[in-house]
Amino acid sequence: MVHNGYVAGVDVGGTKCLAVVIDDDDNIVAESRVATPSGTDALIDVAVEVTRELADVAGGLSAAGFGVPGQLDFQGKMRFAPNLVDVGELAFRERLLGLLDVPVFVDNNANCAATAELTLGAARDSRQAVLLTLGGGLGNSIIVDGVVQRGAHGLAGELGHSMVDPNGPLCPCGRVGCLERYASGSGLTRLAQEAAGSGKAPNLLTYTDGDVELVRGEHVMRGVRDLHDDAIELLEGFSWWVAVGMANVVAVLDPELIVVGGVLVSDWDLLEEPVTRNYRAMVLAGSTREPVRIVPAAMGERAGALGAAIAARGA
Amino acid sequence: MVHNGYVAGVDVGGTKCLAVVIDDDDNIVAESRVATPSGTDALIDVAVEVTRELADVAGGLSAAGFGVPGQLDFQGKMRFAPNLVDVGELAFRERLLGLLDVPVFVDNNANCAATAELTLGAARDSRQAVLLTLGGGLGNSIIVDGVVQRGAHGLAGELGHSMVDPNGPLCPCGRVGCLERYASGSGLTRLAQEAAGSGKAPNLLTYTDGDVELVRGEHVMRGVRDLHDDAIELLEGFSWWVAVGMANVVAVLDPELIVVGGVLVSDWDLLEEPVTRNYRAMVLAGSTREPVRIVPAAMGERAGALGAAIAARGA
Repeated sequence: MVHNGYVAGVDVGGTKCLAVVIDDDDNIVAESRVATPSGTDALIDVAVEVTRELADVAGGLSAAGFGVPGQLDFQGKMRFAPNLVDVGELAFRERLLGLLDVPVFVDNNANCAATAELTLGAARDSRQAVLLTLGGGLGNSIIVDGVVQRGAHGLAGELGHSMVDPNGPLCPCGRVGCLERYASGSGLTRLAQEAAGSGKAPNLLTYTDGDVELVRGEHVMRGVRDLHDDAIELLEGFSWWVAVGMANVVAVLDPELIVVGGVLVSDWDLLEEPVTRNYRAMVLAGSTREPVRIVPAAMGERAGALGAAIAARGA
Repeated sequence: MVHNGYVAGVDVGGTKCLAVVIDDDDNIVAESRVATPSGTDALIDVAVEVTRELADVAGGLSAAGFGVPGQLDFQGKMRFAPNLVDVGELAFRERLLGLLDVPVFVDNNANCAATAELTLGAARDSRQAVLLTLGGGLGNSIIVDGVVQRGAHGLAGELGHSMVDPNGPLCPCGRVGCLERYASGSGLTRLAQEAAGSGKAPNLLTYTDGDVELVRGEHVMRGVRDLHDDAIELLEGFSWWVAVGMANVVAVLDPELIVVGGVLVSDWDLLEEPVTRNYRAMVLAGSTREPVRIVPAAMGERAGALGAAIAARGA
């Protein structure tokens, strides 16, 4: 492969992979999307295929970065990925290195998004920040002293799997009462279906012809825009849980900034008021501490792919 | 005052102040204890008095450090101290500077204990560590890249005030379901009184002539040593909550080491097995991640005072 200064970044999501190529000035010069398959081998195949395609378009690549929804150690081995179907422990970086003839960087996709926000986006010039990614799950990453922190083994940034309710629902990770069961896209869907199933969300059911199983988080947002009381109450409850995550992480880390990203941030106009109001009422010593700025992510849906590419430059 | 290389460190606890003077080699050359009074002015008076006394013994001082059970900003102003009686916002460092003619350093006392453990104790040579102080409250501090982290405003390290139960009891901080209501000395006392009050801890009541109000955490430990089933069950429940704190902070920060300090660590022989067992069952991806070492603090009850003195050298 021609090493020409272009770098690829692939954000492997739970449902789709979004890949970009950037030039020396971080401009996106090519882009591709493909569905995320089930199973380890299919996942590797797709990751290689989309990277080779982009390499063809760019006339070569200098490196490739991959953001993955799971815990990756410093060797690029996936230790745990509860949100990928049929994918367990996997030497992700090693297998890609054998198939692509460029340096390969692999990290959690929330960390990749944080790299993009830190370099180009909402966390620029920030030394102490926390990023929350409200997607299907709840991604998280931590910036201390201006550096995305990966912990002692590369596994940091799993606020979504902190226990916040000993009587809470079971999480795909096998534990009970994880924050992600509430403060995430799937959490909102769960809260909405629960309300719909117990007769507390009649208006949402009008969007699904009365089918509780079809109720999704999106219907809550739509219901709020349609000024339905049941949807507004659900948004309030959801926002309370997002605020729990913020207040808990602020208590421990005291950042100056929280950046909220992920697909749900497209409804930030609805989320901002209830989330920040609940956060302010809940944060420890809220009346005497410096306020923490809470802002939406600036890099949009390409943040993970872009950050994977930026981080790959050092690979 | 003669500036002779000696440095004082004062650990202001919820009930007592423990003060030390150290020499250039971190050896303790003088020590003093005094009860912590109620109220801001009395607290300042006692802090000044104990420091002057030690300065007399040492024939002078080069600096003085104070560890305080609350949130201190980088100016040494106390922002929040729910565990000190009648003490609110207080320009702690500024007032001491006006009364002592040496440089003054002020920080949270868990951070001071962390400095001692990092410099001389259980966290020596550790780059990524978390310290938990099981005292009356639950202190916490964070070491990232070998440095005790204070966050953007000096207020980091309050894992004890992360919300872990939306249906939990009220905390002195004004919020509900804080981890400190479970995983601390006062938490253990609360759990024990609750059990005793509902007839579930008959053996503990034999230590207090049947008085529920007099039941304390210490009785649980005594009951475990006396092999009483009710006490063993309470220790198990308490250990579960300590493990929640560990698993939650490990999910976010992925340290290599957890150091457990505070007065309860004197019962580490009883706590170690149930705490580590519950932690291992609870931590995210426990079967695939590197184990985190969980060890007792090495510096004993003088850790806070010693760390305050060590940190004061740079003041």
